[in-house]
Amino acid sequence: MVFLVRTDLGMEKGKIAAQVAHAAVELYKKAEHRCPDKLRAWESEGAKKVVLKVGSESELLEYFRRYANDFCSAIIRDAGRTQIAPGTITVAGFGPDEDEKLDRAFGHLKLL
Amino acid sequence: MVFLVRTDLGMEKGKIAAQVAHAAVELYKKAEHRCPDKLRAWESEGAKKVVLKVGSESELLEYFRRYANDFCSAIIRDAGRTQIAPGTITVAGFGPDEDEKLDRAFGHLKLL
Repeated sequence: MVFLVRTDLGMEKGKIAAQVAHAAVELYKKAEHRCPDKLRAWESEGAKKVVLKVGSESELLEYFRRYANDFCSAIIRDAGRTQIAPGTITVAGFGPDEDEKLDRAFGHLKLL
Repeated sequence: MVFLVRTDLGMEKGKIAAQVAHAAVELYKKAEHRCPDKLRAWESEGAKKVVLKVGSESELLEYFRRYANDFCSAIIRDAGRTQIAPGTITVAGFGPDEDEKLDRAFGHLKLL
C-alpha cells in the first residue's frame, strides 16, 4: 500500500497517522472484495505500507485521477473535529499491489 | 480505536503513520471476528481513531498488560527495514469500543 499525505495542511504527527490509518482500513476492506489474492500475498510479505508526501490538494487529486482505476484506491476527507476544516482531503491511498507497479506510479515521490 | 505510539524512538512522521496503519488493520481484522457489532457501530459513527503518546517500551507494555483483555488489541513490531532495529515494539492499538470505555483507560494520555 502507498499513501500520499498533504504536507500543506500543517497536520500534527498524530493527525497524519489517524488519516493514513483510515485509508489503510478502507483499502483493506476494498481489497477483501476486489482482489483477495493480492491482499493475501501482501499480508504474507509483511503488509508493506509506504507513506509519501504531496504538496497540495491539486497534486493529490492529479495522482488520484491518474491511478484510481489502476489500483484499489481511497480518498480520505477529514471529519473536521480537530485542526482542519470539515471535508478537507488529507490522504489518498493505493494498493495493495506489486511493489514494481506501485513504484512505477509513485516511486519518484519523497518519503514523509 | 486508540493507538499508543512510542515517542522515545525518534520515528519520522511517515514511519509513525505506517505503524499506526498496521495496528488499525490488525484491530479491524480482529474485530471482524470477535466483535462485529461493535465494528459496525464504530464505522457508522465515523471510525474514530485517536493517536496518543507514551514515552517508552515499558510504559506501552504496562498499558498492554493492563488492557489487552478488555479490548481487541494489537502490538506492532517494526520489520526494521528502515530507521529502527528489527522487532522493536512501536505501537499498541486498542478497540474499537465505546468512547467512554476507551476514555477511562487512556483518556489521561496526551495526543501525539
